[in-house]
Amino acid sequence: MDKEFKVPAAEIHSRKKNIQKAMQKENIDGLLILQRVDLFYFSGTSQNGVLYIPAEGEPLLFIKKYFPRARKESTLANVIEMGSSREIPSIISDYFGKLPGIIGFEMDVLPVNNFRFYQGIFGNLKYVDGSPLILNIRMIKSEWDIEQMKKAAELGYKTFEFARSEIRPGLTEMEFAGMYEAFARKQGHQGLLRTRNFLAEAYGWHILSGTSGGIVGLLDSPASGKGTSAAFPCGGSNKKLLANEPIMIDLGSVLNGYHMDETRMFTIGPMPKREMAACMATIEVQNAVLEKVKPGITVAELFEVSESKARSLGYEDQYLGPKGVKVSFIGHGIGLELVEHPVIAKGKDYRLEPGMTFALEPKMVFENEFTAGIEDVFSVTETGYKMISKVPQKVFIC
Amino acid sequence: MDKEFKVPAAEIHSRKKNIQKAMQKENIDGLLILQRVDLFYFSGTSQNGVLYIPAEGEPLLFIKKYFPRARKESTLANVIEMGSSREIPSIISDYFGKLPGIIGFEMDVLPVNNFRFYQGIFGNLKYVDGSPLILNIRMIKSEWDIEQMKKAAELGYKTFEFARSEIRPGLTEMEFAGMYEAFARKQGHQGLLRTRNFLAEAYGWHILSGTSGGIVGLLDSPASGKGTSAAFPCGGSNKKLLANEPIMIDLGSVLNGYHMDETRMFTIGPMPKREMAACMATIEVQNAVLEKVKPGITVAELFEVSESKARSLGYEDQYLGPKGVKVSFIGHGIGLELVEHPVIAKGKDYRLEPGMTFALEPKMVFENEFTAGIEDVFSVTETGYKMISKVPQKVFIC
Repeated sequence: MDKEFKVPAAEIHSRKKNIQKAMQKENIDGLLILQRVDLFYFSGTSQNGVLYIPAEGEPLLFIKKYFPRARKESTLANVIEMGSSREIPSIISDYFGKLPGIIGFEMDVLPVNNFRFYQGIFGNLKYVDGSPLILNIRMIKSEWDIEQMKKAAELGYKTFEFARSEIRPGLTEMEFAGMYEAFARKQGHQGLLRTRNFLAEAYGWHILSGTSGGIVGLLDSPASGKGTSAAFPCGGSNKKLLANEPIMIDLGSVLNGYHMDETRMFTIGPMPKREMAACMATIEVQNAVLEKVKPGITVAELFEVSESKARSLGYEDQYLGPKGVKVSFIGHGIGLELVEHPVIAKGKDYRLEPGMTFALEPKMVFENEFTAGIEDVFSVTETGYKMISKVPQKVFIC
Repeated sequence: MDKEFKVPAAEIHSRKKNIQKAMQKENIDGLLILQRVDLFYFSGTSQNGVLYIPAEGEPLLFIKKYFPRARKESTLANVIEMGSSREIPSIISDYFGKLPGIIGFEMDVLPVNNFRFYQGIFGNLKYVDGSPLILNIRMIKSEWDIEQMKKAAELGYKTFEFARSEIRPGLTEMEFAGMYEAFARKQGHQGLLRTRNFLAEAYGWHILSGTSGGIVGLLDSPASGKGTSAAFPCGGSNKKLLANEPIMIDLGSVLNGYHMDETRMFTIGPMPKREMAACMATIEVQNAVLEKVKPGITVAELFEVSESKARSLGYEDQYLGPKGVKVSFIGHGIGLELVEHPVIAKGKDYRLEPGMTFALEPKMVFENEFTAGIEDVFSVTETGYKMISKVPQKVFIC
């Protein structure tokens, strides 16, 4: 925990400017922000409330609970205590002289019933999806954002070091994950990872040891692991860690809301040659992709480079999952949520831009046997990339 | 983790019968289930898929990933491997000879964009909100459901015992929460608590010690605690546990998908008299409510009993939060999600029925000073109630 942590006024100001420019371009007169992370991004507070951003002028932050805390955390000029969301339209109308003609909502996450409630109180306006704008603004990180991610990277580094020093045969996957998560929380980890998709459940215990790593499941990830039961069939389980098996730790580190997503292979004592070769191959694939990372390249090209490298190394069948259930991405944007834009996916033609941050995670699954992989976070610079992650790029042999 | 855990065919069958009866009564021809917990409830699997329940006949479970695992976990007759959700309408139409005229979706959780996708592929049907039916069916637990909750209660009991034995001054709230959560996971805790509301974030580290307990915040809970930062401003923090202060541990225990939600006060060494009296008062309030629990009573009556008891004990100002920011409920249903129907809330006139389960959590907040509370889970029987929780109803003086 960082006692001094507060989103600076200059950040809040430039985020507002960026979204307003995009709104003006898209002819959206106002955005109503309800989702917690978007609210925090544009206001600096996560208190229970609703943020209205006009295409021009000052945003209005409506707070249900708890006003004193929101007032202290947010540098926005207009923080308004409200009793009910029903008050929002008339306050907007009074402040700006009229309601927006075209209003955007976060339709990628807003449930139908909530949307209908707002349609009911705003009446006959034109309603559009504001989420593409929001996500595209959030995709480009400021220097300050990247500084925050570097602090989270330091947490990730320490947590992997702790895991290296404490790993031992006989601990169950979930028990060991509990240990390193407890350590991370002591250093300020917020405990919960955040994802946007209503069906995604992010969690900190994606530890897949030996045969657990060979288990495919519901996740849009090469391996899902065994999990704790049919109710939660992914991630760590009661399987005990064994000596000489490949153990994948896919770790989410979150500090002051900023995520890191990093994967390393561990082994207690030496690993068999075939397993070790697969681990080293994922590092080679990651490096092959990184050589191509610079502004202007399409994510599809990056995906193809990775596939072609994996194939040339002899891992076509295992790369990104077993045949028929392979995933079609090798990385994803990351920031205040674990998965942000851009997704580095097969066939997508959008291009890298300076300020993007992404986790790159080539993985291989030997079904019913084991998984191998690596994952680090990078930022795109004017000429190439920088590594934000601080964990050594190696297999941890413990 | 329970290796043998599988939802029995008889449960899946009776859940289907119950929802179909409700659908017929409400003239809903079909329900399309997308949310993970609802899918698990009606199918027995949480793999990535979509469940169609017709008002009559056999459901169709469409699985995107991972078919072999879904096939093994679900006792439904029709488990269909699908490549894309776009295939769903034609398969339904082929199987039943037509599409449903009126189709229900989980509009309380389904994002607008997802709903529009399904409207696009199903075309011109009548679309209704199926979530009230689903939640009302899930509200009434079977004996088997309650057996599962008893197993989760055993986990809760063990975790509180562990906390009692390991608590000590100098640990930070988050560090200590990490320790008892690691213990719980070793016993099979699934790690993640589940909630339905798109703005709710459930977590296992709601530990509020001393002054942290006096901090109000965004949560719809009497106290929110300090939290780790403005990005996640609730629950445990870097505050160190001190001797002689009231420490509230509000613990979620989840085994095989079934939740328990229990709160106990701890203190390291004796607590000051005023703090101890407040803790004991919350137990008295809980007992006063329980005396009234039986089928037929309205939740509003239970709420009033609790308020009146708290008032008579002299805690009107602190009960359910400080003045102006009090919460308006004293309990909530619980099962496969942390918060289910019924909510035991002020002024609501629905009545208790046998088979309901609920967490009852009278709490008091002395703003900027401390919080006091208790929470246990109960089931409604034909004549009264039974306690599912196994934790002794006392303050843990350690």
